[in-house]
Amino acid sequence: MSATASQIIKCKAAVAWEAGKPLKIEEIEVAPPQAGEVRLKILFTSLCHSDVYFWEAKGQTPLFPRILGHEAGGIVESVGEGVAHLKPGDHALPVFTGECGECPHCKSVESNMCDLLRVNTDRGVMIGDGKSRFSKNGQPIFHFLGTSTFSEYTVVHAGCVAKIDPAAPLDKVCVLSCGVCTGFGATINVAKPKPGSSVAVFGLGAVGLAAAEGARISGASRIIGVDLVSSRFELAKKFGVNEFVNPKDHDKPVQQVIAEMTNGGVDHAVECSGSIQAMISAFECVHDGWGEAVLVGVPNKDDAFKTHPMNFLTERTLKGTIYGNYKPRSDLPSMVHKYMKGELDVDKFITHSVPFSEINKAFDLMLKGESIRCIIRMQD
Amino acid sequence: MSATASQIIKCKAAVAWEAGKPLKIEEIEVAPPQAGEVRLKILFTSLCHSDVYFWEAKGQTPLFPRILGHEAGGIVESVGEGVAHLKPGDHALPVFTGECGECPHCKSVESNMCDLLRVNTDRGVMIGDGKSRFSKNGQPIFHFLGTSTFSEYTVVHAGCVAKIDPAAPLDKVCVLSCGVCTGFGATINVAKPKPGSSVAVFGLGAVGLAAAEGARISGASRIIGVDLVSSRFELAKKFGVNEFVNPKDHDKPVQQVIAEMTNGGVDHAVECSGSIQAMISAFECVHDGWGEAVLVGVPNKDDAFKTHPMNFLTERTLKGTIYGNYKPRSDLPSMVHKYMKGELDVDKFITHSVPFSEINKAFDLMLKGESIRCIIRMQD
Ligand SMILES: NC(=O)c1ccc[n+]([C@@H]2O[C@H](COP(=O)([O-])OP(=O)(O)OC[C@H]3O[C@@H](n4cnc5c(N)ncnc54)[C@H](O)[C@@H]3O)[C@@H](O)[C@H]2O)c1
Ligand SMILES: NC(=O)c1ccc[n+]([C@@H]2O[C@H](COP(=O)([O-])OP(=O)(O)OC[C@H]3O[C@@H](n4cnc5c(N)ncnc54)[C@H](O)[C@@H]3O)[C@@H](O)[C@H]2O)c1
Ligand SMILES: [Zn+2]
Ligand SMILES: [Zn+2]
Ligand SMILES: [Zn+2]
Ligand SMILES: [Zn+2]
Repeated sequence: MSATASQIIKCKAAVAWEAGKPLKIEEIEVAPPQAGEVRLKILFTSLCHSDVYFWEAKGQTPLFPRILGHEAGGIVESVGEGVAHLKPGDHALPVFTGECGECPHCKSVESNMCDLLRVNTDRGVMIGDGKSRFSKNGQPIFHFLGTSTFSEYTVVHAGCVAKIDPAAPLDKVCVLSCGVCTGFGATINVAKPKPGSSVAVFGLGAVGLAAAEGARISGASRIIGVDLVSSRFELAKKFGVNEFVNPKDHDKPVQQVIAEMTNGGVDHAVECSGSIQAMISAFECVHDGWGEAVLVGVPNKDDAFKTHPMNFLTERTLKGTIYGNYKPRSDLPSMVHKYMKGELDVDKFITHSVPFSEINKAFDLMLKGESIRCIIRMQD
Repeated sequence: MSATASQIIKCKAAVAWEAGKPLKIEEIEVAPPQAGEVRLKILFTSLCHSDVYFWEAKGQTPLFPRILGHEAGGIVESVGEGVAHLKPGDHALPVFTGECGECPHCKSVESNMCDLLRVNTDRGVMIGDGKSRFSKNGQPIFHFLGTSTFSEYTVVHAGCVAKIDPAAPLDKVCVLSCGVCTGFGATINVAKPKPGSSVAVFGLGAVGLAAAEGARISGASRIIGVDLVSSRFELAKKFGVNEFVNPKDHDKPVQQVIAEMTNGGVDHAVECSGSIQAMISAFECVHDGWGEAVLVGVPNKDDAFKTHPMNFLTERTLKGTIYGNYKPRSDLPSMVHKYMKGELDVDKFITHSVPFSEINKAFDLMLKGESIRCIIRMQD
């Protein structure tokens, strides 16, 4: 039992008060976890593009004030009633999508879209009682993705928390709790390229580079990176990307450029940018007869995916994935072990690190396309 | 060697002179087959909805005068130079998509979209020399789908002709050359439902009923038929359809009706109507996490498939198929044998039969939704 259990904790959090305005570090109050919940002390968190979308709130529902953040590692401070798989002191990764263990999805080998704990970007409260655990001077502050890791302490549904080996360095494995697993799983679990195949990856951020890394490990021979920022290519080489296309360099649609490079299209495409145009291009650049595209990037609320149905009839496949089809509680512990055994390199995704007080710099770095992942050190 | 080999044959053909106008039985001239081609004597042909689309030419490129027809059975009259797998007298089914045997598609286990002989709805001439083999008083008449079976004699690329067991009744197995294999393969080869799963079939013509039959044989427990014509349901029961939804009976979109019936959506949907709205509904009615939809119906030239990309991200899959992914020359002989051994019932698809002189009646029956397949007897 920790000294703070059952008590309100006062701590620092980076609050997004308004769309697009710098986060403000505030002293807030974090209520104790209720039944089925866990209160985590966050040690390291990082910034994913999904945080930026909901902070910008351009193509997404605005919900403020809110504590963003969902890629993180921490230690269990206390647990609510009925939480069996976690206890204070456990090292843990919170995940934006959960695993109740009981629903048809949790029981299906094909799906990780838990009926109870699946991602819900518009919910700003806890599932149990529909309330927030965060407040400042009595004013509730909304949660984000059920995780809100831009806070020294946060409350998360226990089904969204994976217990991991305490020997794993949290400042590294924290990136497995979203971007790296998402991209890696999109290739390894969903696209499943055969050795020698060709794979196009749209968007070379952490998610896309992890998708490329998955393709490299699968033995794909041509890995074509597509990004609007050409400086990404040099970086991407470390992740197996061996050809590069910047749509801006061409007068014709990028799907046509890729089809011409590959004698009709790639075997697989993985879309990791969130741009609707890239989603359509990723689908249309796969080879007829056998090509498959996987959507990963988060679209805007009002986007429409639009293509001629003949592109499907000619035997192309399109699917999508949340969190690379990993089940967080079941699969994250072994992903962490893969890292510890050197089978999965996460260090190379981490290009920057800032103290919590400089969290807004992480936003700048991502918006300028300079970082892959920037770790935010909560204790500094 | 037949007496007519290398000679022009004069025979009867049903010519579509104008969009939507009754076909006219004319005496035409059929040139001998060139290198790699086969001249077939058609004994039985039937009407598929694809013939109707290109005859109506509402949503498709008009190309007239044209000899339609692509679902048929016949006997090889003569063969052009270099044709090794067929000889005069062979019983054969012409198919609208071919198999050169040499290209990456023909060599792939996943695809039947032969680079050379894949379906091309807008081509009205032979591939070899870009000319038509049909003429009337010197005026060329366009081919259709490389088959043009509404003629007593037709010329087809040898790669589009499957040699079959001469003991098979051509007035029955002719329907395997398009509709029945297309629908059956869409389920058996592409959707692959597991025993106990739920399958929605949109459009209960021959193609949709064959898709349902495939689901029944696979052991699907719920087979939901969707059609705008309620009289189709009684008929559909013989093909395993055990629930029926007419979108016209509901105020909400049919995908929502089906989701409510099935606790979130069906495991598989197969779209066999050609309506773009049905394609979208078929995709959107599959369950998130694992649902898969297969498009089979032929869309209009200007149709756009449109859906919110989140419907993919939530782990739904969409694919399409031409001819149920069967490779015509490799797979049709064994499909014919399946029929002969009683493993595949094609007789129940055949609801009507007319002599060649009454071919326009087959169009009426399909447009009124009264027939599944109407056999046209070329010799009567
Ligand atoms: N499905 C999931 O479970 C899941 C999980 C995490 C992140 N995501 C999403 O994945 C995407 C990538 O996240 P990230 O953190 O790697 O972002 P990031 O900003 O680091 O990388 C995105 C990259 O895409 C590039 N890009 C933008 N528009 C493009 C276009 N039209 N064509 C090609 N490239 C383009 C950018 O230049 C950038 O390099 C985001 O949409 C994010 O929300 C999805
Ligand atoms: N992909 C291929 O290889 C391939 C091959 C053959 C046929 N086809 C196509 O398959 C489709 C079916 O062919 P068929 O010969 O069985 O046609 P058909 O006319 O016999 O049957 C079509 C059925 O769809 C129903 N329908 C129409 N609009 C609908 C809607 N919005 N929702 C539900 N049902 C609807 C009609 O009432 C009819 O019963 C056609 O589009 C045809 O061109 C495709
Ligand atoms: Zn993320
Ligand atoms: Zn669950
Ligand atoms: Zn057909
Ligand atoms: Zn071929």
